Amino acid sequence: MKISHIEHLGIAVNSIEEALPYYENVLGLKCYNIEVVEDQKVRTAFLKVGETKIELLEPTSPESTIAKFIENKGQGIHHLAFCVEDGVANALAEVEAAGLRLIDKAPRGGAEGLHIAFLHPKSTQGVLTELCED
Amino acid sequence: MKISHIEHLGIAVNSIEEALPYYENVLGLKCYNIEVVEDQKVRTAFLKVGETKIELLEPTSPESTIAKFIENKGQGIHHLAFCVEDGVANALAEVEAAGLRLIDKAPRGGAEGLHIAFLHPKSTQGVLTELCED
Repeated sequence: MKISHIEHLGIAVNSIEEALPYYENVLGLKCYNIEVVEDQKVRTAFLKVGETKIELLEPTSPESTIAKFIENKGQGIHHLAFCVEDGVANALAEVEAAGLRLIDKAPRGGAEGLHIAFLHPKSTQGVLTELCED
Repeated sequence: MKISHIEHLGIAVNSIEEALPYYENVLGLKCYNIEVVEDQKVRTAFLKVGETKIELLEPTSPESTIAKFIENKGQGIHHLAFCVEDGVANALAEVEAAGLRLIDKAPRGGAEGLHIAFLHPKSTQGVLTELCED
């Protein structure tokens, strides 16, 4: 697989409104988009930092995986997303052939209209890992 | 503060030798340096991905903060490091003036000869955050 860069870093927060003043006023980053991803039960805010995005993830329901993550581990970095140059479907086939456990067997739609798939943290040294293509 | 990019992402692992085959053979990244940071009781392996580095952190002692992190939370992303353009000392002064809690009151030496300082996760929405300058 050919990874070009870190596409984004997903960070679980209780509230985008409470988190943004730190990211915008202290770190000086700029939020350029907020959207709801209904099927993930999250509201996401995007900030650009260099070639990477920070994706703040706020649960919109107590059943959201982000709500459960925060309940178990507290606010913090939730996942790491790599941009793959040769497409997510090809990358998934490689990863599966290498014997890794997948969360998504096929690419699906994510925030910002990307094709994405998650690998299981049991197979990725504990880091919930997402593969994306633009 | 002016952040240019994510300088690195620190990932706590039990063993660099066990983690590297995933990063190198599955993800296709390349480890270009391994070094021991004595005062942090860690061994670090660096891989480049786009403009960012992944820093694998292996504890060299049970007293290492990384050993304690793994004991409490398991392997996974430990900290997020931003590259600041106007210097770590200036950035720390700004952060302190904004009322945030610091771990390092002044820049200190980190891996790869960088000047670094950590902000406290209580003040950064749960993300252990490092500021670096090249």
